Amino acid sequence: MEREFESTLLENAVGELSRLPGIGRKTALRLALHLLRQEEKTSDSLGQAIIDLRHGIRYCHECHNISETDTCPICADMTRDHRTICVVETVKDVMSFESTRQYTGVYHVLGGVISPMDGISPDQLQISSLIERVAAGDIDEVILALSATMEGDTTNYYLYRRLSSLPAKVTQLARGISVAGEIQYTDELTLARSLINRTPFSI
Amino acid sequence: MEREFESTLLENAVGELSRLPGIGRKTALRLALHLLRQEEKTSDSLGQAIIDLRHGIRYCHECHNISETDTCPICADMTRDHRTICVVETVKDVMSFESTRQYTGVYHVLGGVISPMDGISPDQLQISSLIERVAAGDIDEVILALSATMEGDTTNYYLYRRLSSLPAKVTQLARGISVAGEIQYTDELTLARSLINRTPFSI
Repeated sequence: MEREFESTLLENAVGELSRLPGIGRKTALRLALHLLRQEEKTSDSLGQAIIDLRHGIRYCHECHNISETDTCPICADMTRDHRTICVVETVKDVMSFESTRQYTGVYHVLGGVISPMDGISPDQLQISSLIERVAAGDIDEVILALSATMEGDTTNYYLYRRLSSLPAKVTQLARGISVAGEIQYTDELTLARSLINRTPFSI
Repeated sequence: MEREFESTLLENAVGELSRLPGIGRKTALRLALHLLRQEEKTSDSLGQAIIDLRHGIRYCHECHNISETDTCPICADMTRDHRTICVVETVKDVMSFESTRQYTGVYHVLGGVISPMDGISPDQLQISSLIERVAAGDIDEVILALSATMEGDTTNYYLYRRLSSLPAKVTQLARGISVAGEIQYTDELTLARSLINRTPFSI
């Protein structure tokens, strides 16, 4: 990208901002000019927060969730059920499950799903550490909570194969119509699945 | 906004990022998680560029354009025509005119337009410094290059009144159909204006 602005500092800031996903040169310029209109402490604290974030955050050595300590607060919480592991793709998925307030077990963040198209093979994911955790024993259940996509299903199947020789029970998320979902707007595959896996009526 | 994440560092970064215009909490979280996946130097250089930007950039004491020096490169350029001042709203407008490569005069950045609705009065803009520049003499022409909005027109009229007692000629941008603009998609006001201000045919 050619140099566009008279000011090297502006050029630099726009260049760096536009490397963020979903932010092009135009948006980056708008953000930079916005920052120039604010007080110095506004851009100082933004810049510092970005620097501190990456320096201060590491990955939990147990579940690979982000953490400010070697063991994340979830793994360190002894009131949680450490015999149930929920396997998720990303850190964000942990946040999603936590926000349901329905899950009291621990997690294992794979860091993605197997995707030959994107060049992601099993050894680039946190799979062997999962197998080790489960093989170490004291695990009752492994919940596969991956996306219901082709890559997610492939990964589910791969994990199931790797885990099947171990004593832990392997389960996966229920698939069916969304809560508040209308039948007419639900796709056929989901509808078929919801019929096959129908559950006893309850209120 | 309530604290949402376990990590103070993440909470901080998301909070700071979401103060940027057009960036909500969800986008801010996406950006923060993206930065966490990058190398340390990526977020370091982004953070530092943001901090340096605001510290290193000041406003040209002559035209109020952004600059790394007291006098901006445009005002300092003695090959430019310093007897013609193009009055614009923002720093970004200077960039737009510069990118046309058609203008060789200097600028005066008002910092906005008069807008009673947004509480912007003439004394919050760089108007008196413009009058002083023109009154100091040696100015042949002041080009009013403000937006063709109600606020822009109000400001144009206000500036015209303030400048009319001074010897400089006051002009404004031509209004008419856009280059490559189709008649059928041009609004009536613009069309009427383009008819009234028609120019001799040229190729």
